[in-house]
Formats: sequence, C-alpha cells, structure tokens
Amino acid sequence: MTTVSIIGNGNMGQAIAAIATAGGHEVEIVGRDASQPVTGDIVVLAVPYPAVAGIVAERGAQLAGKTVVDITNPLDFQTFDSLVVAPDASAAHELAEALPASKVLKAFNTNFAATLHAKQLGGTPTTVLIAGDDADAKQQLADVVRAGGVQAVDAGALSRARELEAVGFLQLTLAVQEKLGWTGGLALVA
Amino acid sequence: MTTVSIIGNGNMGQAIAAIATAGGHEVEIVGRDASQPVTGDIVVLAVPYPAVAGIVAERGAQLAGKTVVDITNPLDFQTFDSLVVAPDASAAHELAEALPASKVLKAFNTNFAATLHAKQLGGTPTTVLIAGDDADAKQQLADVVRAGGVQAVDAGALSRARELEAVGFLQLTLAVQEKLGWTGGLALVA
Repeated sequence: MTTVSIIGNGNMGQAIAAIATAGGHEVEIVGRDASQPVTGDIVVLAVPYPAVAGIVAERGAQLAGKTVVDITNPLDFQTFDSLVVAPDASAAHELAEALPASKVLKAFNTNFAATLHAKQLGGTPTTVLIAGDDADAKQQLADVVRAGGVQAVDAGALSRARELEAVGFLQLTLAVQEKLGWTGGLALVA
Repeated sequence: MTTVSIIGNGNMGQAIAAIATAGGHEVEIVGRDASQPVTGDIVVLAVPYPAVAGIVAERGAQLAGKTVVDITNPLDFQTFDSLVVAPDASAAHELAEALPASKVLKAFNTNFAATLHAKQLGGTPTTVLIAGDDADAKQQLADVVRAGGVQAVDAGALSRARELEAVGFLQLTLAVQEKLGWTGGLALVA
C-alpha cells in the first residue's frame, strides 16, 4: 500500500484523495502550513502555482526522497493570455530544480476535478497524463490512479510538462469562455 | 459559397477536402509547385512544416488578402522530443510574420485525418480548434467545417497556436508510442 499525502484541500485535492482512497491507499490531507509533517511516499501539491514556492521553502527537506506531484497550471490569471513560467520550461521543471532530491512528476493538471470524480467525460474514461524522469515514480502514481478506477498514461519525460501545461492552459481558457464545461475538457481517446 | 484551395494532397489535405466538399463548397487541390495559381478564398497549406517556407517564397503574392490556414505540427521528427520553432512562438506565428497581407489561421493540427473522416472519436464529435487574429476569417473557416459535419471551436487569438501546437506535439508523441491510435486522440468534450 502506498501512502499518499495531499497538501491542499481544494476541489482538486479532494478529487485526488477520493481516487487514492477508492484504490485502498492511505490518504493524509495536510494544510499548507508546515506544522504537520508529510509522511506519504507520494506527496501531491494540490495547491495553486503561486503557493508552490512557499511549500518548497518550508517543506523542502521533508520532501527529499519522495515522489512529489505538481498539478498546477501556471497561468497569468489576470489576463488568461499567457503562462507565468518560461516558455521553454514548466512549473514542474521549476519544481524539479528546487527539489533535486525528490522525484518530481507532472500529473492531474489536464483533468478538471469533476472528471476525476465522474471517472469519465463525454462517455470516455478519464485519463491522467503523467510526465516525469523517474520511471518507478511514474509507475507508482499510475498504479494509485488505476486502482482508484481512473486511467493513467505515461506522457513521457518531465520535459513534456511544457506540453501538459499548454494543454491545461488551453483547456482553462476554453472553460472560462464557456466553450466547454467543467465536467468536460480534453478526453484521451485511445 | 466559399472556395477552398488546398495545397498538398496527403491524408490531411484529402480529409479537409472531403469536409469542404461535404458542406457544398468548391474545392481546388493544387500541388506544391507554384505553376497552378490558387483561386480560393481560404487556402489550406496541407503540407508538412518544412514545406511551408517554399510555398511562402513561391506563392506569397498570390496569398495576399486570403485566409491562409496552417495545419502543421513543427516537430523535430528525428528526436520526437521537441519542436523546431521558438518555444514562445509557433509555426503559425512564423507564417503570419511571413505573410503580413494574409489572414493566417491555425487549425486542424490537433486532428488526425481519420477523425476528420469519421467525424467522431470514441463517440465524441470531432472538433477542429481554430486560432487566429481575424474574427471574420475564423468564422469563415468554422462555417466551412461545420457545414461539412464537423464541430469547430474558436480557440482564441493566433498566439494560442503555441498551445495548439503543444497539443499536436503531445498527441503525436503518444501515437508513435502506441498509447493512442490514429483513429483516436484528444477529443473535446463540451
């Protein structure tokens, strides 16, 4: 059994917690302040991008050796017209640079919370796209996702987080313009 | 009736021609050499990215005033690990710079040819995502696509071509790794 720690209790954190619980894994939800240590093998940073730097600063040592999952979409939420990370990089790349002793994965940023709960969108099974440079860590997270009844696909190296964040960005811009609903999005049809 | 000229007769060119024909529009398919002029209101460059520069050089003057549709995915097809355009730009952005008198759109690059023919993937209607800075040109192309029985969604300004090309890139890497088939891909669930 893999223990999954989730930092953040918003709609994404709750949806990811539900998947891990459904798969029989132990889930620990901790607040953003660092007073409660994280004990999980996998730690999901279920917080908005601007909150990640503070978590790194406060919990960097705690996260060493762990699989750390970045779910953020680093949009400029004032303009909804650009990302706030370097165009050739990604929030996940930044996180990996900041946590060199952790196994950083990008995942869940292309899924809206409702489609994680529903396990489908438009009749297509929900798929979590996972990017990362550590094959074992990716497999570990994919196992947790699949045990919870949701599909998981290895999207490649952590450098593919640039593309996953572009997908997340595009999807959010379409949703805020009401061209798709929060129960929809981009579904991966195999 | 809109006349649609398609430069290139590969599987994408044929699929786009079939949509336009199904919608009752006149379609003209011309080869990559410039001996045959293009007469359409919309000109689709249904060629691989490396062929675009030659078309611009030979047909730039012919394309003035027209709606020009870029469908390319500018991957490094040697490595399948990066794009060959600047990370903050796109092939469509390059084309717009090269053809300042044309109305350049990005479209079709997130659709595999089979899903344009089938008009669905995994039971979800196929959607063509269209980005561009000229609202009338986007509407004109969307009308042609919809008349042919395929959905069309305005994905925003031409700057969103960066994200559309990231989607196309990701989708191609998943297909070549056999994580999805050429009859599948990312389906837009409204």
